[in-house]
Amino acid sequence: MSYAEEALRVHKEKKGKLEVVTKMKVETRDDLSVAYTPGVAAPCLEIAKDNEKLYDYTIKGNTVAIVTNGSAVLGLGNIGAGAGLPVMEGKALLFKEFGGVDAFPICIDSQDPEEIIKTVKLIEPVFGGINLEDIKAPECFYIEETLKRELNIPVFHDDQHGTAVVTLAGLYNALKITGKKMDEIKVVINGAGAAGVAIAKLLIKAGVNHIVICDSKGAISEDMANLNSSKMEIAKMTNREFEKGSLADVVKGKDVFVGVSAPGVLTQEMVKTMNKDSIIFAMANPTPEIMPDEAKAAGARVIATGRSDFPNQINNVLVFPGIFKGALEVRAVEINDEMKLAAARGIANLIKDEELTEEYIVPNALDKTVADSVAAEVKRIAREMGIAKL
Amino acid sequence: MSYAEEALRVHKEKKGKLEVVTKMKVETRDDLSVAYTPGVAAPCLEIAKDNEKLYDYTIKGNTVAIVTNGSAVLGLGNIGAGAGLPVMEGKALLFKEFGGVDAFPICIDSQDPEEIIKTVKLIEPVFGGINLEDIKAPECFYIEETLKRELNIPVFHDDQHGTAVVTLAGLYNALKITGKKMDEIKVVINGAGAAGVAIAKLLIKAGVNHIVICDSKGAISEDMANLNSSKMEIAKMTNREFEKGSLADVVKGKDVFVGVSAPGVLTQEMVKTMNKDSIIFAMANPTPEIMPDEAKAAGARVIATGRSDFPNQINNVLVFPGIFKGALEVRAVEINDEMKLAAARGIANLIKDEELTEEYIVPNALDKTVADSVAAEVKRIAREMGIAKL
Repeated sequence: MSYAEEALRVHKEKKGKLEVVTKMKVETRDDLSVAYTPGVAAPCLEIAKDNEKLYDYTIKGNTVAIVTNGSAVLGLGNIGAGAGLPVMEGKALLFKEFGGVDAFPICIDSQDPEEIIKTVKLIEPVFGGINLEDIKAPECFYIEETLKRELNIPVFHDDQHGTAVVTLAGLYNALKITGKKMDEIKVVINGAGAAGVAIAKLLIKAGVNHIVICDSKGAISEDMANLNSSKMEIAKMTNREFEKGSLADVVKGKDVFVGVSAPGVLTQEMVKTMNKDSIIFAMANPTPEIMPDEAKAAGARVIATGRSDFPNQINNVLVFPGIFKGALEVRAVEINDEMKLAAARGIANLIKDEELTEEYIVPNALDKTVADSVAAEVKRIAREMGIAKL
Repeated sequence: MSYAEEALRVHKEKKGKLEVVTKMKVETRDDLSVAYTPGVAAPCLEIAKDNEKLYDYTIKGNTVAIVTNGSAVLGLGNIGAGAGLPVMEGKALLFKEFGGVDAFPICIDSQDPEEIIKTVKLIEPVFGGINLEDIKAPECFYIEETLKRELNIPVFHDDQHGTAVVTLAGLYNALKITGKKMDEIKVVINGAGAAGVAIAKLLIKAGVNHIVICDSKGAISEDMANLNSSKMEIAKMTNREFEKGSLADVVKGKDVFVGVSAPGVLTQEMVKTMNKDSIIFAMANPTPEIMPDEAKAAGARVIATGRSDFPNQINNVLVFPGIFKGALEVRAVEINDEMKLAAARGIANLIKDEELTEEYIVPNALDKTVADSVAAEVKRIAREMGIAKL
């Protein structure tokens, strides 16, 4: 039975993947009087006096909204808010199983960024954090920026930052293996959507000085006409030598290829033009930009993909449960770049130097100890920066 | 320790009352591939083709949103969306414990009915039903009517209809005891808010011909000036003899007093002016309109309150878990008056004639078998009326 068939069978049998259960039992009159009326009035009144008490008396402090409008679900495109629900439930499942975080899907039936922003702001009281998910670019950038500015709780677009953090984690360890240095490597990122842009920004924060981003038409540079605002923003931060041309042109002489694009777009011939000990992160799903054995044969030293059936799976599940767990536990008011860098270090450092190999640069996606390491790093930094309330 | 103190202690210790748990485990790569990518794409695509498949593959079919803006929380007034959360969590707890229904709090930080309506419509994909809660009158009427018209899932304002259904259930049995007839009794309802209006409407549906509603200024009748639209609507349906005056004036010669008003407003002197074998539902919380022993001493035959420490507790928990359970199980497109009447009969009939006494007219609020009886009645009627999809 294929995964698709098995997924249909199991989802139908179980009617979805989540359940809302209770932490208190109601067997006696006293139980009811404490969990509900009249006792429940007491925490209500405490919160009415001081909204921060939501964190003491309610689920808010450990609850994340998984917000989508279904406009960029997996690789399926704009399939609608409802059709995205199985993915959002899956995300909630991973939040709980890996991070111990309670998450609930909020599927907003709208393509209008302002409506989405407004809705999230209106339903914020219940949630300690907002995980944006599968919202298409460029709207996702505006939605996230606005919500980050206007809400006082962490807002995190996982398709951008989760991917960026785990990519950086893998890169830290790939550099150890190849002996290359963050501030010296030349990187090409293929794909200028949400993930590609976020990866570029985080690599720059991590110290990378030379990045060229390509979209399907080739290298993006600041001197091009007709760039939209998100591409212009990233063009100003990358490609300072104004490289031009196709991926085949600009991949020459690079140390690192990061693909968040389409199957098969990186050929062996292109890999052969890269620098010695090249690092290939071919993360298109389910079929990578180049298959690992082909990349290896063409001379690549370290190869990672998004797939669980090859070594070095670059999977967001290494990031979001831990980064939210950490942010929620210290009641951070946001998840900022320094916390993302800390999360990447937290993941990378889980692999000891003596364990590190070309085929083991990131922990296994199913390793449930990762989230605690990530959370610990994130908490430390949030406290150091003074953005943690606890 | 008082209930208030104990509630503060327990809510703080447990950090709220709800938890989102998973129905699938993720231990192996195969688990992840079925619950999440790549397998999850299959149910997504099925739903993209046919939105009704949400009921097959997701949590929608058994999930209710508990929606409030915190504008009329318990008797505490307009304390805000966040401050209402402990009550909404309590409601979700009761949904689950009594009806097996997964419910999640949606606290909307707005006083604008249009914003509330819009928000609920936008987040509808995840939910199989909407339970409106603790939203003040008259806005609650407009919000419910609009959502009922514009959504194709059950929408139910529990403060109105839950209270009305359980009141009617109690009245069915009180009439059996007193030998009075639904179409002959004279009823006074004290309180013209959400609950009072809904009780009046449902009693009329159940066959009561003579109802006078009082607000704090006395009897409401159609020939009064300055009635707001909801009071005018109810004035047209009640008090066809245009009775005037205070509660003390109009309670004379009545068979039934229904109080959804304020502590102590019904005096023994007033009860003495009622007809023989009078029925008193004094449901103000926590202090009723008259204490049961005083009502009894003044001649009342059957007395009910909202309190768990007196006999005959009129508690919505007898209604909402079962009415939603039934509606969801047959995928009813609404909860209509006939289903409410059926729910009231379902509750009343749980007490066999030989068990029925003046002090036992409704089942115990903690009786977890009630929801199944209510659900069975509701399902039967929904199917008979052709509004059930299953």
